[in-house]
Amino acid sequence: MATINQAPQLPLIHTNHNGITELMLNDPSKYNTLSAEVLGYLLKTLGDIAADPKIRVVVIAARGKAFCSGHNLKQMRANHGQEYYEKLLADCASVMQSIVALPQPVIAKVQGLATAAGCQLVASCDLAIASKTARFATNGINNGLFCATPAVAIGRTIARKQALEMLLMGEFIDADRAAAIGLINYAVEEPDLDNAVEKMALELSRKSQYALRLGKASFQRQIEQPLDAAYRSATNDLVCNLLSDDGIEGADAFIEKRRPHWNNK
Amino acid sequence: MATINQAPQLPLIHTNHNGITELMLNDPSKYNTLSAEVLGYLLKTLGDIAADPKIRVVVIAARGKAFCSGHNLKQMRANHGQEYYEKLLADCASVMQSIVALPQPVIAKVQGLATAAGCQLVASCDLAIASKTARFATNGINNGLFCATPAVAIGRTIARKQALEMLLMGEFIDADRAAAIGLINYAVEEPDLDNAVEKMALELSRKSQYALRLGKASFQRQIEQPLDAAYRSATNDLVCNLLSDDGIEGADAFIEKRRPHWNNK
Amino acid sequence: MATINQAPQLPLIHTNHNGITELMLNDPSKYNTLSAEVLGYLLKTLGDIAADPKIRVVVIAARGKAFCSGHNLKQMRANHGQEYYEKLLADCASVMQSIVALPQPVIAKVQGLATAAGCQLVASCDLAIASKTARFATNGINNGLFCATPAVAIGRTIARKQALEMLLMGEFIDADRAAAIGLINYAVEEPDLDNAVEKMALELSRKSQYALRLGKASFQRQIEQPLDAAYRSATNDLVCNLLSDDGIEGADAFIEKRRPHWNNK
Repeated sequence: MATINQAPQLPLIHTNHNGITELMLNDPSKYNTLSAEVLGYLLKTLGDIAADPKIRVVVIAARGKAFCSGHNLKQMRANHGQEYYEKLLADCASVMQSIVALPQPVIAKVQGLATAAGCQLVASCDLAIASKTARFATNGINNGLFCATPAVAIGRTIARKQALEMLLMGEFIDADRAAAIGLINYAVEEPDLDNAVEKMALELSRKSQYALRLGKASFQRQIEQPLDAAYRSATNDLVCNLLSDDGIEGADAFIEKRRPHWNNK
Repeated sequence: MATINQAPQLPLIHTNHNGITELMLNDPSKYNTLSAEVLGYLLKTLGDIAADPKIRVVVIAARGKAFCSGHNLKQMRANHGQEYYEKLLADCASVMQSIVALPQPVIAKVQGLATAAGCQLVASCDLAIASKTARFATNGINNGLFCATPAVAIGRTIARKQALEMLLMGEFIDADRAAAIGLINYAVEEPDLDNAVEKMALELSRKSQYALRLGKASFQRQIEQPLDAAYRSATNDLVCNLLSDDGIEGADAFIEKRRPHWNNK
Repeated sequence: MATINQAPQLPLIHTNHNGITELMLNDPSKYNTLSAEVLGYLLKTLGDIAADPKIRVVVIAARGKAFCSGHNLKQMRANHGQEYYEKLLADCASVMQSIVALPQPVIAKVQGLATAAGCQLVASCDLAIASKTARFATNGINNGLFCATPAVAIGRTIARKQALEMLLMGEFIDADRAAAIGLINYAVEEPDLDNAVEKMALELSRKSQYALRLGKASFQRQIEQPLDAAYRSATNDLVCNLLSDDGIEGADAFIEKRRPHWNNK
């Protein structure tokens, strides 16, 4: 099992002058599996991104035929044991929850196969655009391993019967079907994927980062609450937004029919 | 800012002989913005409607190119301040929650642009039919004001990724897309909008008002509960319904193969 | 009312050599209504199925033009009274919740009309395939009886506005519409229905029954919890799965590029 000991290729991180950070899964020969090292790196990196006011948008992308094929079963079997699994899966859940909790919007750019925790990664991002050649599955069940944690993200992204079909049957769906059931926002022709994601990221980067960050956090907070509590929570958030510099500037710009200027870092 | 002080045109209210009340937003030159006065009027009017046993169905409609463009930013800026915003947004949330809690079914008849709190208004109605020319956006983000409170209604109406796309990107979607993602029930050709809504309202008006009212309340109560509590709550409601005059009449009419006669006011 | 006293035809139960149990509603002349006797039989039978480790998959099917037309109004009227209704509806809710809680996956095979509690039955199954000739309605409202308990299952299966439309309007939708809104997984041509369901059931029967059972239970447990609790619950489940015989065998088979062998009964 020599390949286990090969150090995995860690994701590449690159931030451009628009504050768009691309986090590129970079282990194509291992189908971009989420090894312990990759999960640890993602967790640390997402923490750094969360703390960086200059980063406006995050794109999670990948190299190779797979977007991400989930956990690294070889590595897991080599380290078989309750303690190892508990740590690994806790880290994985932390990565997924960090994406949901990240101040910045996160776009999944899905160029290839997204399976098991890789499909969970797509579901956990705020937005997702895929190539029409991409395919999606929660296929752990075919190896006697129900995708229990992917089910958390997928069950909150698509409807019940469609989620159970993916989870219990383990079959692939194509990108058009993924768009139709709401797992992704759009499927585009493969040559258009880069442009489609760049356009979306660029538009987000030009908006008020204060409002975007307040908004994403507000959405995730209220969506888990009953209606009345959700309205109280969201009302407080919108009052803060209205009293903020960017909120005032945005309202003034609207009234004065001019382009607003944001306090973006 | 003379226009601020122009008294807004309040909604028109008209109830026909079938008990169908149309609440018509009537300030087309201001794109039917939800000014403080309009929100106050809606809140009072919805209270009156709730208390009126003769009203069977409510249609929220609008005059002009916009269905409703959300809050009146001019008025808000002229009254800038935490207290004003808290009162205004609490009133707005009360209007939206009043629609959800209204005993009668509420249909949105969307003939034009529905943006920000205007889109929230559509999401808050029980049912919605739009003209194919209508368009929808939660575009506050483009003015540095995340649609935090519209997100409450929209996040409970459509799926997560589609909701976040509308909220974070602030782009317009057309009526066919709105129907595909579940924000509205149907999109119809513009000349057919009046007839489609009238047909739906008329059919509702002919049903047992006791059962409709019990049913809407039952649905909204159980949908916020865990499965077991939801079943207990809904079971109680259905027992009440079965023991009611209209429930008995309906069952008898079914058995006797005749049209039922309701105790409608 | 002689027909009331006719003993209803109870469902037929047949388990094949693949561990696929078909539960066939067998009262076509009564449109497969869920009489007290049928509900009692289903409740008992589902209990037996739950306790049988040899049963891998359950298919709920029906004979005749209707899949299931819901409650037996004639019988109910003949036994009119709060106590009777409370018992009957508690049994019905128990049947529906038993399907959700059943260890085995349950597929609805919908060949005809599925109305009221019959539509609830479809919504309560994990998976559903229907003939294109099937139709669906929660039409109790047309008899003054709001489908309050079907609303529990339907409101958790499809989106809010589509659920309210079915419940308040009581109109039929066809199988293609049912698939589009997520009430069923697929609609197939009528002659293909048997094969489509058999194929799905057979594939499920060949998977690790340990993982399928753990998985279905895990999904239903986490879906009712907030995100963080859901991840903790699902993480525990996946650790158990990884430490299980089938989990180990599945991972080994994956690594060794061979077919796995499950501990299925």
